[in-house]
Amino acid sequence: MKPQVQSERIVQELERLAEFSTTPKPAITRVLFTPPDLEARAYLKELCAEAGLLIREDGLGNLFARWTGSAPELPAVATGSHIDAIPYAGMYDGTVGVLGGLEAIRALQRAGFQPRRSIELVVFTAEEPTRFGIGCLGSRALAGALSPEALHLLKDSEGRSLEEVRQEAGYTEPLEEVRLPEGYYSAFVELHIEQGPVLEQEGVPLGIVTAIAAPASLRVTLEGEGGHAGTVLMPDRRDALCAAAEIILGVEAFARGSGSINTVATTGSCEVYPNAVNSVPSRVVLGIDVRDVEQARRDQVVRNIFQGIEQVCTRRGIRYNVEVINVDPPTKSSSEVLRALVEACSESAVRFKLMVSRAYHDALFMARIAPTAMLFVPCRGGVSHRPDEYAAPEDIARGVEVLARALAKLSYAEEKSPKDEPLTLND
Amino acid sequence: MKPQVQSERIVQELERLAEFSTTPKPAITRVLFTPPDLEARAYLKELCAEAGLLIREDGLGNLFARWTGSAPELPAVATGSHIDAIPYAGMYDGTVGVLGGLEAIRALQRAGFQPRRSIELVVFTAEEPTRFGIGCLGSRALAGALSPEALHLLKDSEGRSLEEVRQEAGYTEPLEEVRLPEGYYSAFVELHIEQGPVLEQEGVPLGIVTAIAAPASLRVTLEGEGGHAGTVLMPDRRDALCAAAEIILGVEAFARGSGSINTVATTGSCEVYPNAVNSVPSRVVLGIDVRDVEQARRDQVVRNIFQGIEQVCTRRGIRYNVEVINVDPPTKSSSEVLRALVEACSESAVRFKLMVSRAYHDALFMARIAPTAMLFVPCRGGVSHRPDEYAAPEDIARGVEVLARALAKLSYAEEKSPKDEPLTLND
Repeated sequence: MKPQVQSERIVQELERLAEFSTTPKPAITRVLFTPPDLEARAYLKELCAEAGLLIREDGLGNLFARWTGSAPELPAVATGSHIDAIPYAGMYDGTVGVLGGLEAIRALQRAGFQPRRSIELVVFTAEEPTRFGIGCLGSRALAGALSPEALHLLKDSEGRSLEEVRQEAGYTEPLEEVRLPEGYYSAFVELHIEQGPVLEQEGVPLGIVTAIAAPASLRVTLEGEGGHAGTVLMPDRRDALCAAAEIILGVEAFARGSGSINTVATTGSCEVYPNAVNSVPSRVVLGIDVRDVEQARRDQVVRNIFQGIEQVCTRRGIRYNVEVINVDPPTKSSSEVLRALVEACSESAVRFKLMVSRAYHDALFMARIAPTAMLFVPCRGGVSHRPDEYAAPEDIARGVEVLARALAKLSYAEEKSPKDEPLTLND
Repeated sequence: MKPQVQSERIVQELERLAEFSTTPKPAITRVLFTPPDLEARAYLKELCAEAGLLIREDGLGNLFARWTGSAPELPAVATGSHIDAIPYAGMYDGTVGVLGGLEAIRALQRAGFQPRRSIELVVFTAEEPTRFGIGCLGSRALAGALSPEALHLLKDSEGRSLEEVRQEAGYTEPLEEVRLPEGYYSAFVELHIEQGPVLEQEGVPLGIVTAIAAPASLRVTLEGEGGHAGTVLMPDRRDALCAAAEIILGVEAFARGSGSINTVATTGSCEVYPNAVNSVPSRVVLGIDVRDVEQARRDQVVRNIFQGIEQVCTRRGIRYNVEVINVDPPTKSSSEVLRALVEACSESAVRFKLMVSRAYHDALFMARIAPTAMLFVPCRGGVSHRPDEYAAPEDIARGVEVLARALAKLSYAEEKSPKDEPLTLND
């Protein structure tokens, strides 16, 4: 059996999906439950129905499209990713794993393959934290990493609750039913663009992800004292933005000084109040993101940041509050799923690199309830979350072919043996 | 003649004026040509008409209310200030000089005073830079410091031109006719809250301003490279916000190191793009404000900031652009007007302090076309541009009484003698 992937069709569907955006091409903005998000979901459901898949949606908007196997009572094999996009993003992040997953199923159908375990495409709600400030909303909830109570508390920046906007979008099933039990899937594979430069630089067409870095994110609120920029003398100031500037440079320095190239830390957002050129800033809110494949090293950087904030704020007379938005543990891939991916590469004669992922992915949470691994395809210049994000059709097609072969293998896999040991990778 | 100032009436009118706001009390927001600004103007015109003043408005919305004197052919004496307010400001900045100026005229009327030179209340359009990014819009244009051509180029943050919004607000007179000739007024006095802590700290009820500090403001755009916060490794980053942080701290350090307590420098605004916690900031726009009573010292700080920006951006691989929004020269008060204010204080038995102003005022521009000085009343804690801005009714009333006496004197002043020398003050 050789799955024939139609790369032009994937490109055409990616282009069509890119039209559902609140910003003009090439800048893609597709925020949870906005009209473009809902239109994109409708388009995907159409495509899944054309492929004869059985569609289910849960109360959060997670979409499941199942190709029923000959042993429908067995846990299914799943693949998928997300279609939401941060403001002014590109058209490949997430979408390659959704449309690529669908094309893998269609390629298997065209090759006359008959699944034993069912094969299911999952489109996760809101992998990006844009609207509710928390990444991987859908997969977190599926994996039980976000309780229905926590979901009920979420509000967007306009003060609208998740409950309100999901009902308005037509998702009315109880949030209590979103969580999937461990063992619901026998395996999960996510295809994704690398969002980094390694594959391109090394000239390798495919990455097999052995571990996903552990992200931590903080929201830091600094309260100083405002006043007129002309009249408050320098020694009398408690300028929240000057304190923020020291913290921003501290975040950078702590990551650079961690001892490993694998540590990254970013102050990605900064809101200043009242944000007028002639006013001393009285309040600043920073969004900080820290990641590493080693949890201990990441947590040390987070502790350094906490200490740095305290020192800066004490010296400057600034009140502060640090909210921990999330501190998720890193995850290692399942050796069973890795084996299927490696064998699939061998059958397709595709060179691959074993690598770690430093980006957040829905796979991070799916790994809590199912044996999981990821496939990376190269992206130009390592660029992501930008309008000029690009992945070549032939690279995507190669990834989809390997994905299809792996799904086929996993569909016939026996129950996991107890001696299955996770593969470890030195970083 | 003793002018009887009705302090309850001023307070009541200040309270009424505070109701014209887009934010609920005590936070006042009154931006140029928004509905609250237009309603506040209508209210003021009512009050001026009740006082029997002759009203004129120019094409920019500057409002002139004249009490015609017995020698109407002579240049008039003017007083006034502004009524616009930055977002979340207080209710005293500017308004005390407008309603206080009006009450000074009414107090003179009640005392039976007959002006020789006409006495004119001026309400200047948009002293705050909120909408068009430039402070003292009205007084700049009156003084010829902003040409009609420059006015035609102004756009607000939504891309709407000044021309469009002023026409929509009903101000259709040609902008070419806004400028007033030098000598149009024989004197100008602006009453204002101090916006600083000096009078309160020293327990002095009134300040007579001998010089206004010279403000310079810059808009700095930094362009780095964006990307995913998880995947772009630290050595590969060109993070615009980290560059901005170094610049913010440089602005603070250069002001503190100027050698004088009178130097202040502020990064008041900071806009980050795309401003998402999981994205490396690709672009940042900073608003920087530098002031000093000594122009040479201020300009040295501005030069230091330029150099600092260049060094930081070269080291970090950031492209940058610095726009000079304004660099206005400082101004010294007119000794003739100062003499009238000092004599008025003596007659009212009010203690005063000779002081400099570090805030921008319409008087800075009026000084270009008329002998000018200012009166300051204390404000609590030196706080301004905040909802908790406060000036005591008795302090305001004292300022208004001195203003009334000074206007009366200036109304009978002869033409300025050529030996009139400006009073200088060591800072």
